[in-house]
Amino acid sequence: MLVQSLIERKRDGATLSADNWRALVTAYVREEIPDYQMSALLMAVVWRGLSPGELAALTGTMLESGSRLDFGRWEVPRVDKHSTGGVGDKVSLVLAPLVASCGVAVPMMSGRGLGHTGGTVDKLESIPGFRTDMGLAAVRAQVERIGLAMFAQGDEIAPADRKLYALRDVTGTVASVPLIAASIMSKKLAEGLDGLLLDVKAGSGAFMTEPAQALELARTMVGIGDAHGCRTTAFITAMDRPLGRAIGNALEVEEALLALEGKGPDDLQLLVRAFAVEMMILSGSTTDRSVALRAIDGAIQSGRALERFGQLIEAQGGDPRIIEDPGLLPQAAAVELFEAPEAGTVASVDPRPLGLAVIEMGGGRRVLGGPIDHSVGFVVSARPGAKVVRGEPVASVFARDAEGIAVGLAALKQAIRFGPVAEQLPLISHRVTATGTELLAGA
Amino acid sequence: MLVQSLIERKRDGATLSADNWRALVTAYVREEIPDYQMSALLMAVVWRGLSPGELAALTGTMLESGSRLDFGRWEVPRVDKHSTGGVGDKVSLVLAPLVASCGVAVPMMSGRGLGHTGGTVDKLESIPGFRTDMGLAAVRAQVERIGLAMFAQGDEIAPADRKLYALRDVTGTVASVPLIAASIMSKKLAEGLDGLLLDVKAGSGAFMTEPAQALELARTMVGIGDAHGCRTTAFITAMDRPLGRAIGNALEVEEALLALEGKGPDDLQLLVRAFAVEMMILSGSTTDRSVALRAIDGAIQSGRALERFGQLIEAQGGDPRIIEDPGLLPQAAAVELFEAPEAGTVASVDPRPLGLAVIEMGGGRRVLGGPIDHSVGFVVSARPGAKVVRGEPVASVFARDAEGIAVGLAALKQAIRFGPVAEQLPLISHRVTATGTELLAGA
Repeated sequence: MLVQSLIERKRDGATLSADNWRALVTAYVREEIPDYQMSALLMAVVWRGLSPGELAALTGTMLESGSRLDFGRWEVPRVDKHSTGGVGDKVSLVLAPLVASCGVAVPMMSGRGLGHTGGTVDKLESIPGFRTDMGLAAVRAQVERIGLAMFAQGDEIAPADRKLYALRDVTGTVASVPLIAASIMSKKLAEGLDGLLLDVKAGSGAFMTEPAQALELARTMVGIGDAHGCRTTAFITAMDRPLGRAIGNALEVEEALLALEGKGPDDLQLLVRAFAVEMMILSGSTTDRSVALRAIDGAIQSGRALERFGQLIEAQGGDPRIIEDPGLLPQAAAVELFEAPEAGTVASVDPRPLGLAVIEMGGGRRVLGGPIDHSVGFVVSARPGAKVVRGEPVASVFARDAEGIAVGLAALKQAIRFGPVAEQLPLISHRVTATGTELLAGA
Repeated sequence: MLVQSLIERKRDGATLSADNWRALVTAYVREEIPDYQMSALLMAVVWRGLSPGELAALTGTMLESGSRLDFGRWEVPRVDKHSTGGVGDKVSLVLAPLVASCGVAVPMMSGRGLGHTGGTVDKLESIPGFRTDMGLAAVRAQVERIGLAMFAQGDEIAPADRKLYALRDVTGTVASVPLIAASIMSKKLAEGLDGLLLDVKAGSGAFMTEPAQALELARTMVGIGDAHGCRTTAFITAMDRPLGRAIGNALEVEEALLALEGKGPDDLQLLVRAFAVEMMILSGSTTDRSVALRAIDGAIQSGRALERFGQLIEAQGGDPRIIEDPGLLPQAAAVELFEAPEAGTVASVDPRPLGLAVIEMGGGRRVLGGPIDHSVGFVVSARPGAKVVRGEPVASVFARDAEGIAVGLAALKQAIRFGPVAEQLPLISHRVTATGTELLAGA
């Protein structure tokens, strides 16, 4: 295999064979291909894209580069959800225990914060003692015991993806629909799932700002899932404003606790219900959406969903008393209100400056593996469209000190616009399955 | 400077600033930017191109990364010629001593064989004893003494280009008009020239097979030369058949000796005269083309051009007796004729298989710095359009052994087509200067 000529062919728009891709990825993992050739190839892929056959070969090779969760003959259906990431997206914290409490197992591998977005693993680690670094054997045992595990990607699953992602991260080659799809799916397909729900976010706070791009990514991932025999559905959801009110690790855990009791913000509650129903259907445990919805609402109202979250916390070394007393979560030293500078209407709330401010305030990493302060963040109570009087509190900043407060207030000033209400993306605009795309709301 | 965000901007089609380019190249040479980031950036440049400002900054920084030939107050005008490379292209061997013998100095830095094409340095080294590894001080002294030096690129000139080229060579990022132009011009502009002639070849045996691509490269390089105050003219010339009859190092030296006496093949002789006239004009030593042409023809007919070649050989350690006795050049052990398999017309002679065969027969390098056999090659006497009878010799193979002969015969069989004469590119189709492009022949 002459790597250079494969790079040239991709550069010129040709399609490489499945064997080429298998050989390339395998040799790269063995360090037989240098980073500088792989990064040039990846940039050519950003430029030229991948054919369905190339995409399947790349995803398959990354998947096969590591171990899989193997549940053997264990017959409980298993589903997972993946979000492409946003600001205030604490859906996983609610959804996983909720679905598990309805008899569907959820082996959920999650990520850390990336760019301006938070990560489920970081959020969970704001619970004192909570550990996410579990081996696959421990994950399997816990899922079989309590129907649920939430863990970080270790070295066992898709090491080829880890190595490629680290390279893409520093070479401007992250932003490619097929590369993103292959990376996500190679990990999710290692979880031994019956079904997978994908939450592909669109809008200014998402990685795919354009809905059309989000749709393309959704269709690409659904295609890969389907080709691997994993029932996969994707929703396109809004990330032109934060999801829910809380932004920041411990604050989001607290909001998730509310949502597990049905008391969360409307948008969060709506998304959780829609996703949970879809996951029940994907699991094959029922084909009737109203049956699924009754089970889900029952789990919330009865307290079983929240109870399952407590079991999860306990199983993974965390302090389950946070459920009764969220005050045990890390608390910010400084809190300050952000007041409406004028009477009027909230036109829009831009998620990106808020996500970036959380990092700057210490709630995200600036270097790989760096420590983070779980207590900092925002609660934005004013939604787009809300009418406010001058001086009315529309948000709160939670910070370590006065400097953090200043950063937070500046970000809120930038993020919250007043004036005529800007057009908002529908909370859920499309549902994409292997059979096609359904327009749920919006243009 | 966040390299990653510069890569992303280039990837997305933005124009980087001149300062960005200076910082990128400077840091790369200091090994502060890893190869894997530079190769991704280079692939983004292949994709997106470079603006004139970016191109000027890149070329300037590569030029300034090394030393320049500095002739101080020496007032003899200096010109050089660069060819983008072809098969049988021995023009430099004739042109440099010819122009020097007309009172215009030629400090000519040359390359080794690249891909399927030969290199002037390799050809010169077929002369016993001839050395091309000269420091810039020695080049200057020799040029001031005999008006001429032909030397290989060392570490002194444009080290940034050397490092970048080595990376491009293995990452599929050679084929980019602005990168090729910047690489060539950063070296040529270091020679302290008053004028530069560019021979940009088009056709199946050239790196730019399409004339339109060749024109783009020519215009780009002329623009850079002009911006640096170096009068620059480019000709687009034909490389859809070999130039002259001889292909291979020593064989081409022998043909160059003939051409220095005016006895070379018509196409070679034509190109040399046209280029020499242009170089005289570029040097500023005359503005009258007929005066220049008389000087050139005089230098050939009087033997002064050939004599100057002898002085060059002697100055660079070679055996000048090859001029009187070309039999002192390396001689192939085996020679065999290639005969017309049928009566008819030579339709076309494809240069590429012949260039590749020279390498396979030992006349080019397969690994960097490997030894080469200067004696091997071809003499192709039948030009496209020639009528031949069955069994008539149309070419000769010069090889080390029977195996080489077989390789050569197979290549000739592939290269020489019989039948209706295929359309040929005009020998010189365009002349490109800073003021515009002149169509000299052809469509």
